Order: sequence, then structure tokens, then C-alpha cells
Amino acid sequence: VRPGEKVSVLGAGGWGTALSIVLARRGYRVMLWARRGELAESISVTRENPIYLPGVRIPEGIQVSCDLEDAIRDSGLVVMAAPSHGIREVARMCRGLIPRGALVVSASKGLEVDTLKRMSQVIGEEMPSCMVTVLSGPNFAREVARGKPTASVSSSPKAPLAALVQDAFMDPMFRVYTNTDVIGVELGGALKNVYAIGAGIIDGKDMGLNAQAAFITRSLAEMIRLGVAMGARPLTFSGLSGMGDLVLTCFGQYSRNRWCGMELGRGRALEDILSQTRMVVEGVRTAQVAHNLALLHNVEMPIIHQIHAVLHRGRDPEGALMDLMTRDKKAEVDAGIDSWEALG
Amino acid sequence: VRPGEKVSVLGAGGWGTALSIVLARRGYRVMLWARRGELAESISVTRENPIYLPGVRIPEGIQVSCDLEDAIRDSGLVVMAAPSHGIREVARMCRGLIPRGALVVSASKGLEVDTLKRMSQVIGEEMPSCMVTVLSGPNFAREVARGKPTASVSSSPKAPLAALVQDAFMDPMFRVYTNTDVIGVELGGALKNVYAIGAGIIDGKDMGLNAQAAFITRSLAEMIRLGVAMGARPLTFSGLSGMGDLVLTCFGQYSRNRWCGMELGRGRALEDILSQTRMVVEGVRTAQVAHNLALLHNVEMPIIHQIHAVLHRGRDPEGALMDLMTRDKKAEVDAGIDSWEALG
Repeated sequence: VRPGEKVSVLGAGGWGTALSIVLARRGYRVMLWARRGELAESISVTRENPIYLPGVRIPEGIQVSCDLEDAIRDSGLVVMAAPSHGIREVARMCRGLIPRGALVVSASKGLEVDTLKRMSQVIGEEMPSCMVTVLSGPNFAREVARGKPTASVSSSPKAPLAALVQDAFMDPMFRVYTNTDVIGVELGGALKNVYAIGAGIIDGKDMGLNAQAAFITRSLAEMIRLGVAMGARPLTFSGLSGMGDLVLTCFGQYSRNRWCGMELGRGRALEDILSQTRMVVEGVRTAQVAHNLALLHNVEMPIIHQIHAVLHRGRDPEGALMDLMTRDKKAEVDAGIDSWEALG
Repeated sequence: VRPGEKVSVLGAGGWGTALSIVLARRGYRVMLWARRGELAESISVTRENPIYLPGVRIPEGIQVSCDLEDAIRDSGLVVMAAPSHGIREVARMCRGLIPRGALVVSASKGLEVDTLKRMSQVIGEEMPSCMVTVLSGPNFAREVARGKPTASVSSSPKAPLAALVQDAFMDPMFRVYTNTDVIGVELGGALKNVYAIGAGIIDGKDMGLNAQAAFITRSLAEMIRLGVAMGARPLTFSGLSGMGDLVLTCFGQYSRNRWCGMELGRGRALEDILSQTRMVVEGVRTAQVAHNLALLHNVEMPIIHQIHAVLHRGRDPEGALMDLMTRDKKAEVDAGIDSWEALG
């Protein structure tokens, strides 16, 4: 893909809209697809996405449509930016329509609840003839859309594909690194939403910054443990899609997941909290998936299990924390990871 | 060392005082040494450390003295908690006084400016007959002193020594992990002060949270690079003394280093900023050391060099950031670290 060519972004939420703006800045002809006709119409006319990205002007270079065929026809690059639970359906709709040789970028973070699969796996299943890459990192949509300095990761097991996507997006305010460990990159982006709920609980209970830093670090340690069991590389989790995104989600004021945790920490019931927002609190669903992945791969993830218990089994947050603080004495890096390093 | 025994903490700053409180809670007879007689007297009488830890009551189980010989006589555990630039002198003063077989714990973070050495190396040189271990982690003194949940790392190349110190400090509100990579543990604790200045600049210029998350992550990447060149293990930097402390220092509101960066970001001159505080801004000194270490070990540390240039060469922060954002396209994990992993 070269500037001037047509590219498509599927999903007109905050993140899809922000990525459209980055691509338009890079000189592509961008087609943004919104599932709902009224939203497409409203963005087209007002040049603003009032629901998901209020206050940001959508440049004229971006066309908006609710017609999927129209949106991806002749496109060299198709960005999947639907919410994770809608990705399979959108990918299936694209199957017969997508241009031969188009590069597909998954910009959705999450894991499919029933299958425990990563988004690029889901897309790959539904669009078997396509090359699928992943874009993930510590990227609040509203800051990207406003041109604030941002870094992200383009990932594919095939380094040249990752480099193509890096080229497509990179500019002085959106710096893109490549990483061939797509499993690690996607796991980081998905799991951080669960940990953000935990970080919110710590805030809500006013446990302090030491507790927050310890929580984030030990969350990273168990993320690495699961990742290694699933074939990822440990250092990926020290990167932008791992610790970068974790830190942003746990400390950033915009996160819905963290807000949900804070309310839990203050003693509100989950149903009550969720009924207050029309936005998806991704981490509530992902906690279930992560809990199942830990059991499936026989990996020790005490933090995931405690958050899962608080969310889905009525465990009190205070007791959950005390259980974590009073576990057996441990070494910081487990023997398993040590030997992984030694084996390469 | 067992509860009931005498232990000593040398240095009555915020951190030394907080660690005394933890040890007193664990049941030791704690002797806290203050260099200045008036401070020792004042803490003894008022049961408060009004300069370095205001508002926290010092338990009666802690004795305070300005007599070093008295302070370390018959002690089974000696914690060095002086500021890093004073450690060599305190260690030298202890040489003839320290009881045979006493365990020495370095709780000071920093690198010696002239020699580029780590604190445990400095202590080891001055007290050659002692076993020196390191305690480091994301630990704001005022939270530790107030019994807020905290995690830290006890480190020695000798695992049983690290475990002894873990045993000495660990309780339900102060969770201690062990790590045998003392080089990595000490480098993390020292370098984070430099990066905190950079994080402050980003705040002061209102660049946003994406920029902050990217900055912290790429700081970690270059810390890993230097660490590996110096013999540390990469995953140590993903731990409490690495990313944990980095995150705390870069996001926590208490950090002097970050405050210094914010003022720089707002356009104030360094001398002007430093003249306003009597506290040491450790990162200003450490930037020089890190800059020299990068040159010595021939390691690419673009962020360290830019911060060094802003601090010591009058570089403007805006230009420094643009240089970092517009560097060549990169892979996230460099080839050097990849091959390190493969080699073990």
C-alpha cells in the first residue's frame, strides 16, 4: 500500500475512527465502515463521531459508509476495528468481498469467550485466504486522534508483513515498532483489561501506589507465565503491547475497566455497575477467558483467579487481596521461566 | 536473625525510618542510626521524624542513636539506608565495628558518580569481610511506614542469603520476593530516577498518557539493553525493582525526580529548580553515570542521552522528544537481546 491508495477501516468506534485519522494523515484514501447507517450518516455530515470520539474533527479525506462491499472494494489494507465480540461476524461478512492480496490488520483487543481464541486466529478462520497482522499498543483513541505522541506495535510471525503495516501507519506522532511474536502481542492487549479491574479495586480501596506498582508487576509476571505456556516470548510482555498497555490501562483515567474496578472496591455490586454504562467493560468477559486459559494450560495465575472470583463468585475484594499478600514466599522469576531463558 | 535479636538501620531518612518500622513490626530490637545528633535526639524524644517522614509515629521498640559503634554492636543485620552519595563513607566507618557474620543489606538506590559502581559493590569494597545483599522495589517510604500493602525484592547472587533477608522483612503488608540477579536489581533502582525526570518532562509539556506509556516502555527496553551488556538478566527488569519501581517513580505523585522533570518541561532552568529544594534530585547525578555507562558498554540508549543533554547540555525538551519519535524504524526487541535469549 502506498499513499494515495484506498484503505478501509471496519468499525467506527473510537479506535477505528482514530486509526482512520492516522491513515488519512499518512495520505491514504480512507473508507471508514460503520455498521449502523445512522452513525455513518452522522459522521459523514457533521464530520464528528459524537458517540465514540466527541470533539475531534474527522478530516474530509475520510469517507464513511455503512455498505461493507463498497467499503472494502479495491482496498489494499483492511483494518478490523470492531469490538472483539463482533469480530468473527464482521470477518465472515468480509470473506467473499475482500480484494485478493489485501493486507488485513486486526486492531481489536480481546479473546473470544467460547473458543478462547485470539482475534487474529478468529479472523484467520473466517478469512482463510488473507494475510492477517496485528496492531496493538498503549493507545488511547482520543489521544491518537488528536495527534498526541504515541507508539504502537505491528505484529506478524512474518517479519516482512509486520514491516508493511509499520510502513503504512508510521509517522512522527504515531511511532510503530515491529514484533514477530503475535501470540504475546495479542495476549498482552487482551489480559490487561482484566488487570485494570484489579487496579481499580486497589484505587477504590485506597491501598496506595506501592500496592498499585506491586500489583501491576506481579500481573505482568503471571501474564508472562501464561504467555510462555502458550508459545509467546517473555520479553514481548515487557514491551508496548504488554507492560506499556497494562500501565496505561491501570493508571490512565479513561479506562472503563478501571472505573468498574473502583466501583467494586467501593462495595458496589457488579450488575449495578454494568447497568450504569452502555460501553462494554471488556475485562469482565476476559476474566472468564483468562481463568479458563490458566486452568487449560495449568499455569499459576493467582491474581486472575482472585479477580475472577470477585467478579463472578461474589468474593470480597479485601479477602482477595489478603490471600495474594500472604501467599508462600517466592522467587521473583519462577524456575520455569528461568529454564525457558536457558533453552531459548 | 530471629525476632527479639538486635538489628540496625543506618540512615534516618524517610526510607531508613520506614524500614525500621517494618523491622520493629516483625519483632526485632531495632537501632536506628542518624548521623546528626539533633535528628537522633528529636526522633527519640518526639517519636516522629519531622523532616523525612512527618506524621508517622515511630514505635517505642525503635531506639535511635548517633553513635555508630553503639548502633551496630551485637547486631545480626545491618541495613545501609544512607543516600547513595554517602554510602561509601558510612560503609568505611562501619568497617572495624561490624560484628562478625552480620548480614549487610543495601537499601540505597544509585550509582557512584566517579566509579560508576553499584551500591553493593561500594559497600563490598569498604567492608570486604561482610555478606552484602540488596533490598529494592517500588516502595514509597511514607506508604511502607503507614503499613500500606507493599512488595519488594531481596537480592544476592547467593540464593540462601537472599532468602535470609526475605525472612527478616516479610510480613502480610511487606511482601518480599527473592532474585539472584543483583546487577539487574540494582541497575533498575538506580536508572529509574533518570527516566522519572523524562516522565516529568512529558507531564510538564502535557504530551498525554500514550506518550507516557510509550516513554516508560522504551525506557525499560534500553535499561534491559544496558543490563544485558553488564551481565544482568532481562526479565529482572520486568520485575519489581525494574518496571515496578519505574512505574511508581514515573506515575507516583511523591517523586522529586518527576517534579524536577515537570519544571524542566515547563521551561525552567535546572539550576533554578535545584535551588528550590534541599532534597537530593538523585536522577540528575545518575543521568551522568548512565550516559557514561552507555558509552563504556557501547549500548544504544537514546532516551538516556536525550535526558542527559536536556539536563547537562541545555538541549530543549521539545527537540529531544522529536528526535526520539523520528528515529529509524525499529523492531521492538533488538536482535542482540534475541540472541541473548537463545544463548541463555
